Amino acid sequence: MRIHGKSMRTIWVAADSWGVEIIDQTRLPFAVETRTLRSWQEAASAIRDMVVRGAPLIGATGAYGLALAMREDSSDQNLERAYAALLATRPTAVNLRWALDDLRGRLTQVAPSARMGLAYRRAAEICDEDVETCKAIGKHGLSIIRDLWEQKGKPSRLNVLTHCNAGWLACIDWGTALAPIYMAFEAGIPIHVWVDETRPRNQGASLTAFELGQHGVDHTVIADNLGGHLMQHGLVDLAIVGTDRTTATGDVCNKIGTYLKALAAHDNGVPFYVALPFTTIDWTLEDGVKEIPIEERDARELSHITGRTADGRLETVDILPKGSPALNYGFDVTPARLVTGLITERGVANASRNGLLKLYPEQAR
Amino acid sequence: MRIHGKSMRTIWVAADSWGVEIIDQTRLPFAVETRTLRSWQEAASAIRDMVVRGAPLIGATGAYGLALAMREDSSDQNLERAYAALLATRPTAVNLRWALDDLRGRLTQVAPSARMGLAYRRAAEICDEDVETCKAIGKHGLSIIRDLWEQKGKPSRLNVLTHCNAGWLACIDWGTALAPIYMAFEAGIPIHVWVDETRPRNQGASLTAFELGQHGVDHTVIADNLGGHLMQHGLVDLAIVGTDRTTATGDVCNKIGTYLKALAAHDNGVPFYVALPFTTIDWTLEDGVKEIPIEERDARELSHITGRTADGRLETVDILPKGSPALNYGFDVTPARLVTGLITERGVANASRNGLLKLYPEQAR
Repeated sequence: MRIHGKSMRTIWVAADSWGVEIIDQTRLPFAVETRTLRSWQEAASAIRDMVVRGAPLIGATGAYGLALAMREDSSDQNLERAYAALLATRPTAVNLRWALDDLRGRLTQVAPSARMGLAYRRAAEICDEDVETCKAIGKHGLSIIRDLWEQKGKPSRLNVLTHCNAGWLACIDWGTALAPIYMAFEAGIPIHVWVDETRPRNQGASLTAFELGQHGVDHTVIADNLGGHLMQHGLVDLAIVGTDRTTATGDVCNKIGTYLKALAAHDNGVPFYVALPFTTIDWTLEDGVKEIPIEERDARELSHITGRTADGRLETVDILPKGSPALNYGFDVTPARLVTGLITERGVANASRNGLLKLYPEQAR
Repeated sequence: MRIHGKSMRTIWVAADSWGVEIIDQTRLPFAVETRTLRSWQEAASAIRDMVVRGAPLIGATGAYGLALAMREDSSDQNLERAYAALLATRPTAVNLRWALDDLRGRLTQVAPSARMGLAYRRAAEICDEDVETCKAIGKHGLSIIRDLWEQKGKPSRLNVLTHCNAGWLACIDWGTALAPIYMAFEAGIPIHVWVDETRPRNQGASLTAFELGQHGVDHTVIADNLGGHLMQHGLVDLAIVGTDRTTATGDVCNKIGTYLKALAAHDNGVPFYVALPFTTIDWTLEDGVKEIPIEERDARELSHITGRTADGRLETVDILPKGSPALNYGFDVTPARLVTGLITERGVANASRNGLLKLYPEQAR
């Protein structure tokens, strides 16, 4: 999608044909800066420090991390070392495991001398496949949005609420939850997005608002606390969020606070959709609340916040009283019973094992 | 309660016997500073700019505002002018109207020459009555906490979640939602408080964490998004919040986001109590969601945040992308069906007209 009017992806191979360029997402929305990764260690740090984030982009960065490792030393030992280290960077990210397993499986079947070329080609393919996946999600989501808009008599503003950032910045392009929104925008549907700030880390306020604004999509940033009130007053037509991990039964693990919005949507009859590529589905899981381990992150993400001062400097400030501790879990699980539907690249599924198996019959055991 | 080991109230008459001293709550938690109000205009500004906030404290400040007005000019015209201006400062605050009506009713019945003395005496009485009210709320709430703690086998930590600040800083002393917590703490019950950050304005992170920490009560600040997850995992035994306005049917208007926590409590079988003095009950209201007007506040409360830099300076930073608008409603309404009970100074009521009328039979029409 567009930044400063220019079409971009979130990850690409540099002009030197081997460095891997990314947008430094920790600097957004205050500066658009790219970084070049030149080793698997740099790829691992970029994932760990959330310079890149979002399930598909983490997977792609992991894949390019293995390509960088193969360029340096294409031995089995180095492959295993880089694989293990990259996998350890984000425990919740099922896409990362998927991409790393995919690449490792292919690389171990060829001679070390063929590995570098294969790794770069496959990483590029994973990126292109993700773009196609997101476009397919967008197309299926667009049908939902268009139907709703027509059903409501084509109002002059259709309000969609989203939480965190499941936009193109989380993917390679288009995004998952935001792909239907971009497509609706391109189709001329007068869409307006309520952007949850998404504390802590503020990825809604920082990233979703930024990418929607850059692309020209009408949006308003709101406190995470506001969505319920807006739904009570008929100001949300639809909610669409992403997911980091989805159980075979349709439970959804997404950024902390998603569950609260799903409860409010349910309480007010607002459709609540989750957009996801098949790579986020973990077919081994039955009960998301019980089985998905939730990452506890640095409390500093809550206590410290960065922004621009009136005179344009970036400052990071501590907002808590001295001596008050904070706790920061990154994700929560929304039970399938609160999810209206799962928008996948193959279509819209009921949030249930049967619903998912209808779209993914090859997963039936 | 205590600040820096010293017992304080939130409002008191200065040593000169006429100025009205308050703690500047906009400076908390970074500095403890007092201000002296010397006119009704200063009292009105203090309410409007949230230098004082919290339903009971706003009422007391309004009452002292009328006392300051009577000191300056005790005519009927000045009384009406100050009354109207003070009333206009906060539309949601039913306590403010109650206190101003109470004082005006008494003042119009005496000669102008008697008004100043009466106003100061009555304002002091309103403060003392509020302290007694909060203590009674605390006592009734303590029973709930103690019963729950005993029923659960006296665990080594009893977790209470609260939203925003309904502590002593919102009242004169003790608080409403926090009064039971302070009493449980004094009674040796090992209470631990999950403090919702409470975006925007962060009155949980800034005020509740500050006052609990100063008094020595164990607490942890969490993002507003976290409460649902904690409840899903059995980490919240009880939620207690305050209210700015309560309908005759038990709907509760409180800081934005309260509704989301009530939904999560309901979904997880966590008792959800609301603590309130009778002055917040608006007996004319039937349906809180439909009838209570919600104050739209400056979007700057969301876009800008103040904290300490690493080198100890206070800085205010803008956290939003340039060009992204924000919307800021201050309150939401939690329907009575989600409220386990209303803790009042007369006891614990069911959140219903019948429940409230059992405690306030004089309100039956």
